[in-house]
Amino acid sequence: MSVSELQEKIKVLEAELKQLKHGDSKPREKIAQMSSEVVDSNPYSRLMALKRMGIVDNYEKIREYTVAVVGVGGVGSVTAEMLTRCGIGKLILFDYDKVELANMNRLFFQPHQAGLSKVEAAANTLHFINPDVVFETHNYNITTMENFDHFMGRIKEGSLTKGRIDLVLSCVDNYEARMAVNRACNELEQTWYESGVSENAVSGHIQFIVPGETACFDCAPPLVVASGIDEKTLKKEGVCAASLPTTMGMVAGMLVQNVLKYLLKFGKVSYYLGYNALEDFFPTMIVRPNPQCEDNWCRKRQTEFAAREAAKPKEEKKEEVKEEEVVHEDNDWGICLVDEPSPTESKPSPSVQNVEGLAQGIKVAYERPAPVADTQTDAAATETDSISLDDLMAQMKSL
Amino acid sequence: MSVSELQEKIKVLEAELKQLKHGDSKPREKIAQMSSEVVDSNPYSRLMALKRMGIVDNYEKIREYTVAVVGVGGVGSVTAEMLTRCGIGKLILFDYDKVELANMNRLFFQPHQAGLSKVEAAANTLHFINPDVVFETHNYNITTMENFDHFMGRIKEGSLTKGRIDLVLSCVDNYEARMAVNRACNELEQTWYESGVSENAVSGHIQFIVPGETACFDCAPPLVVASGIDEKTLKKEGVCAASLPTTMGMVAGMLVQNVLKYLLKFGKVSYYLGYNALEDFFPTMIVRPNPQCEDNWCRKRQTEFAAREAAKPKEEKKEEVKEEEVVHEDNDWGICLVDEPSPTESKPSPSVQNVEGLAQGIKVAYERPAPVADTQTDAAATETDSISLDDLMAQMKSL
Repeated sequence: MSVSELQEKIKVLEAELKQLKHGDSKPREKIAQMSSEVVDSNPYSRLMALKRMGIVDNYEKIREYTVAVVGVGGVGSVTAEMLTRCGIGKLILFDYDKVELANMNRLFFQPHQAGLSKVEAAANTLHFINPDVVFETHNYNITTMENFDHFMGRIKEGSLTKGRIDLVLSCVDNYEARMAVNRACNELEQTWYESGVSENAVSGHIQFIVPGETACFDCAPPLVVASGIDEKTLKKEGVCAASLPTTMGMVAGMLVQNVLKYLLKFGKVSYYLGYNALEDFFPTMIVRPNPQCEDNWCRKRQTEFAAREAAKPKEEKKEEVKEEEVVHEDNDWGICLVDEPSPTESKPSPSVQNVEGLAQGIKVAYERPAPVADTQTDAAATETDSISLDDLMAQMKSL
Repeated sequence: MSVSELQEKIKVLEAELKQLKHGDSKPREKIAQMSSEVVDSNPYSRLMALKRMGIVDNYEKIREYTVAVVGVGGVGSVTAEMLTRCGIGKLILFDYDKVELANMNRLFFQPHQAGLSKVEAAANTLHFINPDVVFETHNYNITTMENFDHFMGRIKEGSLTKGRIDLVLSCVDNYEARMAVNRACNELEQTWYESGVSENAVSGHIQFIVPGETACFDCAPPLVVASGIDEKTLKKEGVCAASLPTTMGMVAGMLVQNVLKYLLKFGKVSYYLGYNALEDFFPTMIVRPNPQCEDNWCRKRQTEFAAREAAKPKEEKKEEVKEEEVVHEDNDWGICLVDEPSPTESKPSPSVQNVEGLAQGIKVAYERPAPVADTQTDAAATETDSISLDDLMAQMKSL
């Protein structure tokens, strides 16, 4: 090529680069301290305004928190983006999948990222959006033995100060991965949020899990919002699940909004919030743990929680605190969407009874066989459970 | 520069380009027909699966529709992205604002777009995400006389077949722009959705407006979801509004989900859906039009709607149809979040009475003065309204 041809080529490349980058080649400089200054160039002005609006006392505290997002797909990627734009301190992303064009019907990933690992592609984009956030990525499957141990280690030591992280968000799409998160969080006594979207794309939910205090994922069959459609007509062999950017975005929004409420201590954190898109119906409830949960660590956490509660003076007990959780005096509707089971009613009871206490509009993803009469000894209960668990696992696998 | 230096520069530029674009330089080829094939390279497989799941009869019909998005900010940009990823036929974007770093606390725009017009930046990104969608952008303020006429013209002739578009979505952040959309849609008898997010960032709503059938934006003071916080403590001079990616994303999700239900005829389209983030409370209701609405076109549409309803055989009337709108037999909760005013109760009544029929948790953004007794003549009513309107306008301006 001649010099003029080369120069021409450089011009074209530079123009293309400029078009792509709109004049910017690097992420902006880091911002040492969140400012409330109302200028167009301040990415935090609208967030810091939450303080002056009386919603949040100390918004900038968000920079101290570390959150793990397990599963960076339709819900997890938007979850990570929302937290990044909110200026979270650190995000730890776990996924072993690659971006595909088949993901383009959900938010966040773009076609040019097809073939890249989801965690790397996400961290690249998110770092560009907000370089103040620290990102740590793990491109592996948390359910293998070795990775599971490493995953546990990052929960224990992944925070900005190399200590325990603040919250785990499960945004995975399968039973095994949810069980792995559940096991890790029960053992580590780690508060977490489970989230999910139905195969028909028109319902979803989030569930806040505090080991020992609320039902863990293993306490009862997974709870889902009934879509009002006969599930039997949905399942067809070899058919991929449907998904919508709307439902995924809603579940991510419900999730991160509750994460903000939990971390920054405002509003009321929902224990279970469902979403039925066909009817715009949003059931809420609390699900108490199952004293006969299969997970040893869950049962241990339940015993510890009960002991802590028993040791408290009466006025400090969790039951009493619950009543005051509506923090705003001017709640001028004062109604609850559905009956929340009163904590005083949640005596130890078999799992089936817990499941019967579900709010209207919520159902279990599958049913355990009815307990046989007079089998309330431990051994019998275990056998009943283990039989049903096999069935359940087979059912889950076939999904 | 020497040839070798030039060649080196080209290498660097190409590497930078490649890094930015991850190997891809152009949007993918257009796809002539939506396919249900389950392969990683099919961007529509998860959407077309909605057919096999029994949710939508004819998903590919989405390609025939044209939707206008007025306001491409926190709600509008995500709305446009969701519709783009769903494969909508055509989007017409209206905004006159530029992207700023201060917008980075909401989804969609990225820092390298700062300074670009919102409609152009959005269309560039969206075209790359889904080149099958046709984009038309208007970088102007719809409230000026000349632009308003052009805006009306695009509603009338902007569709893919140069005819009437299918839906207008208002995602603007101010009173004047909402009134402009309202005026245009009343005159053109154009169905549209209004949306909004509160200044304190913790509540929002969408409202479906069918001229003559439901309340228009001018029929009653704007309806908002009470946040449970004393509004008087919020308003401080010179303070910018707060905003959150979560609330904006939720409102966009609520909006586009209902757009999909409306266009593709599945589920139940919500007339009014509110969102209170502090309590995870989602009120719904229908608001009937105000027979004394200030907008001439609204009153004309009301008369026409009443005449059409009166001419129908009894079993076809809208009132009767309403009862059957829950399309799924297996609705196993069967409850309504809040009382929807029965259509038979919606006799012509002064606006204040309409407003009194609000669902719990919803309030008006401001209150009109109580009507004076014995002023039910047209002239007196007009005077009462026009006095209050001045007050209201002054109040709105001060927001």
